[in-house]
Amino acid sequence: MTIDLNCDLGESFGVWPMGDDAAMIELATSVNIACGFHAGDADTMKTTVDLAKTHGVSIGAHPGYRDLHGFGRRPIVGLTSREIENLVAYQIGALQAIATMAGHRVTHVKAHGALSNVACEDDTTARAIASAIKAVDSDLVFVVLANSRLVRAGEAAGLPMVHEVFADRAYEDDGSLVSRRKPGAVLHNADDIARRVVRMLQSGEVISITGKTIKMRMDTVCIHGDTPGAVNIARSLRKALKDNGIAVAPFRAMK
Amino acid sequence: MTIDLNCDLGESFGVWPMGDDAAMIELATSVNIACGFHAGDADTMKTTVDLAKTHGVSIGAHPGYRDLHGFGRRPIVGLTSREIENLVAYQIGALQAIATMAGHRVTHVKAHGALSNVACEDDTTARAIASAIKAVDSDLVFVVLANSRLVRAGEAAGLPMVHEVFADRAYEDDGSLVSRRKPGAVLHNADDIARRVVRMLQSGEVISITGKTIKMRMDTVCIHGDTPGAVNIARSLRKALKDNGIAVAPFRAMK
Amino acid sequence: MTIDLNCDLGESFGVWPMGDDAAMIELATSVNIACGFHAGDADTMKTTVDLAKTHGVSIGAHPGYRDLHGFGRRPIVGLTSREIENLVAYQIGALQAIATMAGHRVTHVKAHGALSNVACEDDTTARAIASAIKAVDSDLVFVVLANSRLVRAGEAAGLPMVHEVFADRAYEDDGSLVSRRKPGAVLHNADDIARRVVRMLQSGEVISITGKTIKMRMDTVCIHGDTPGAVNIARSLRKALKDNGIAVAPFRAMK
Amino acid sequence: MTIDLNCDLGESFGVWPMGDDAAMIELATSVNIACGFHAGDADTMKTTVDLAKTHGVSIGAHPGYRDLHGFGRRPIVGLTSREIENLVAYQIGALQAIATMAGHRVTHVKAHGALSNVACEDDTTARAIASAIKAVDSDLVFVVLANSRLVRAGEAAGLPMVHEVFADRAYEDDGSLVSRRKPGAVLHNADDIARRVVRMLQSGEVISITGKTIKMRMDTVCIHGDTPGAVNIARSLRKALKDNGIAVAPFRAMK
Repeated sequence: MTIDLNCDLGESFGVWPMGDDAAMIELATSVNIACGFHAGDADTMKTTVDLAKTHGVSIGAHPGYRDLHGFGRRPIVGLTSREIENLVAYQIGALQAIATMAGHRVTHVKAHGALSNVACEDDTTARAIASAIKAVDSDLVFVVLANSRLVRAGEAAGLPMVHEVFADRAYEDDGSLVSRRKPGAVLHNADDIARRVVRMLQSGEVISITGKTIKMRMDTVCIHGDTPGAVNIARSLRKALKDNGIAVAPFRAMK
Repeated sequence: MTIDLNCDLGESFGVWPMGDDAAMIELATSVNIACGFHAGDADTMKTTVDLAKTHGVSIGAHPGYRDLHGFGRRPIVGLTSREIENLVAYQIGALQAIATMAGHRVTHVKAHGALSNVACEDDTTARAIASAIKAVDSDLVFVVLANSRLVRAGEAAGLPMVHEVFADRAYEDDGSLVSRRKPGAVLHNADDIARRVVRMLQSGEVISITGKTIKMRMDTVCIHGDTPGAVNIARSLRKALKDNGIAVAPFRAMK
Repeated sequence: MTIDLNCDLGESFGVWPMGDDAAMIELATSVNIACGFHAGDADTMKTTVDLAKTHGVSIGAHPGYRDLHGFGRRPIVGLTSREIENLVAYQIGALQAIATMAGHRVTHVKAHGALSNVACEDDTTARAIASAIKAVDSDLVFVVLANSRLVRAGEAAGLPMVHEVFADRAYEDDGSLVSRRKPGAVLHNADDIARRVVRMLQSGEVISITGKTIKMRMDTVCIHGDTPGAVNIARSLRKALKDNGIAVAPFRAMK
Repeated sequence: MTIDLNCDLGESFGVWPMGDDAAMIELATSVNIACGFHAGDADTMKTTVDLAKTHGVSIGAHPGYRDLHGFGRRPIVGLTSREIENLVAYQIGALQAIATMAGHRVTHVKAHGALSNVACEDDTTARAIASAIKAVDSDLVFVVLANSRLVRAGEAAGLPMVHEVFADRAYEDDGSLVSRRKPGAVLHNADDIARRVVRMLQSGEVISITGKTIKMRMDTVCIHGDTPGAVNIARSLRKALKDNGIAVAPFRAMK
């Protein structure tokens, strides 16, 4: 049994650092790099791609809404499908060129923050994202939240996909993530998180916040790099996976 | 005898339009598209690429400083070579992805505004631009101001190049452009401009503001789309070229 | 009978112009000046305040969401009351300083675009806007869409207020504006608009899109400066008001 | 003998924190607050003003170039006097409104980063800054680098002024700061810095990098909050001042 661990990286901006990228790159097997709209800039992107290349970690574009001030966490209402396609394509391309310059290659795309949250529940947004990825490079792997509208959008576009679960987020009974505004939405205890992920991977099931079991395909587990204790949580998870005979390796996408 | 006419396009931003792109696309044989740092955005870029594709006009990236408010016309001092490489690569890549999505292809790169002006006189900046172009795609044609530091930078990088002269700008005795802040820097009379360009192309010489003749290689003539009377000037130039047996066609770059 | 005509001004940004401010300043009796978040910048603001001062027209701050690219027309979801208060206060203050430098004075505040639309239907947003105005200067007049949640928010804050109706927008039966996305939302014929406004002012009633009459307080009529034919519509309206004995003068706010 | 210690605060942006404002507010007697152009935003400004009010620390506006990405540290060439006046006035006003909302008051202005560096050597820029301050509120205290062009500009404008020296920066023989790009420009050892400042204040002289003594008026000492060890350096300085009988208190400006 093998699993990918993905982590958002390159979320600094200008003089402002974020997260411990040097530590997380040792723990993740694929990383999602901010492309300048909600975080990151050309310099941060280059530094992050160089770091990933040195560690042999595969990289993906992490496009978000055009909202640096809000870190792409606030839905911007009323964008047309075309506008979403354009902003996704723009961000992928920017990272591709930086990666080419660094001698590396973009292999996947995962939507960020509010853009992802909106798309998980809205077919039009989900399809626009999938459509842009396909139009830019149909070999790019679409990282989709398991059980969300992104899955159908990726299937309809015929994109290679990997299904993602979260290590530290609670799930509703319908398989969606519990909103961060609700209590219990985010798990903080490293041991709890590690145990929970091992059980999820072994059973192929997520246990919802009310105790319901939900069957899910799981190709990659999202670990966070920007929360307090993030590095410890990730280390503890890797240890637990190893102790339970679950290998960690970059995902292989299936159409 | 054949000459290319290049024009900056896609310089709108958000709700703010600029220039008469629909008219200029009929008159230019290659266009340079703003990439979102000094003007343009993902939507404008897509619209502009679509327009160019429809008219069979070849497209180039037109990277500038990160300065929307100043339209990239103000030098930003102190960027390192790496920072210039990164911002150039980022902008090229963004346009490449948008072009791919539109079924078109980026074939050249021309620096914009203050980034170009600085590079024309500063080897370090010129080399950083050339280096980024080469790293992203060494088949991209580097459009360089004839007689400037860009020429040497492009040669050193081994990039295919086309040498550019300006239709409506006066030249100093050393072959550099007269600064816009000096009187007589910009020509406004359509007939004067047309006559001047025909003579330049026929003789292979520019006549400086003091009357000196300067030998230059001329592969493309820059025409403007955002000045008053721009469309008339371009039309008058095309007529004069035709009347003098000079064909107009997209440039073919030579290494 | 006297009415104020208010118009949004100073919506240029950097090198990009918008609207015919020189023409509209002759037709409006109060103007709302963009403060740099959705449009405008420090230079445009200064130019616009100077223009208003020269014409003896009173000025107001026109704060919007932080969204230049979308011109503040897209709701940004999830801002807290504090965040709305802060962005409103910031923008008012910026204009106050520019006005002081120009020897003029900010006398009113009117929310722009999506910020206004959201506030018209959401008490929390409306109260945050009113609260910021009051905290910065409780003598500032709050320009509120007649019949909207802004009215209650202004009353609760004890702010001087003027109630606004739109010259060129259709109304729903509940007195709200018909969404721009629906057919018939915006009126374009100058004569129709002029007749409609005269009737509205004489009767104190708006006629909804289905023909229902709705009683409203009307202290100011919003005229647009950035639509095709805007200047003609405004001129025609001023003539119709004069022909019907309705004087045009800056509003006097009542608590 | 009494001295003011001033520190730049509120340099976070959106989700990105910078510096340990909670620690520095205990050590400084006046703080300079970023106003959203090179750092800070409406929310950070409000939080910072609240913090200063709670600690009874006086606040100043810290206007910089419009360059978030470069933190205002890169000169932007070619701004006119008018443009500098406008951007300074805009930023002062924005902070004034936030301060009024918080029940506090802006008492001084100090230019940030490259805007300050340029003004220290360029009369036109220095005068434009002084002119904006005077036009917005002629009671605002102008914090000027001792021995720089800012002094003359402030005198010419008739502004109340305080002269500033740096705790941790080396000086050239002409009394200007050694460029950060030169070795030895910044001092890092807390004890050295403390000793140096005490000697400067007792003698009224700065010792240049070559050992020359330069007479200077010193009303305030700039301490940094965003460098490694900043808090320790400031604590050590305050202890040394106390041990040497130099009281620490907010500046009193003299015309």
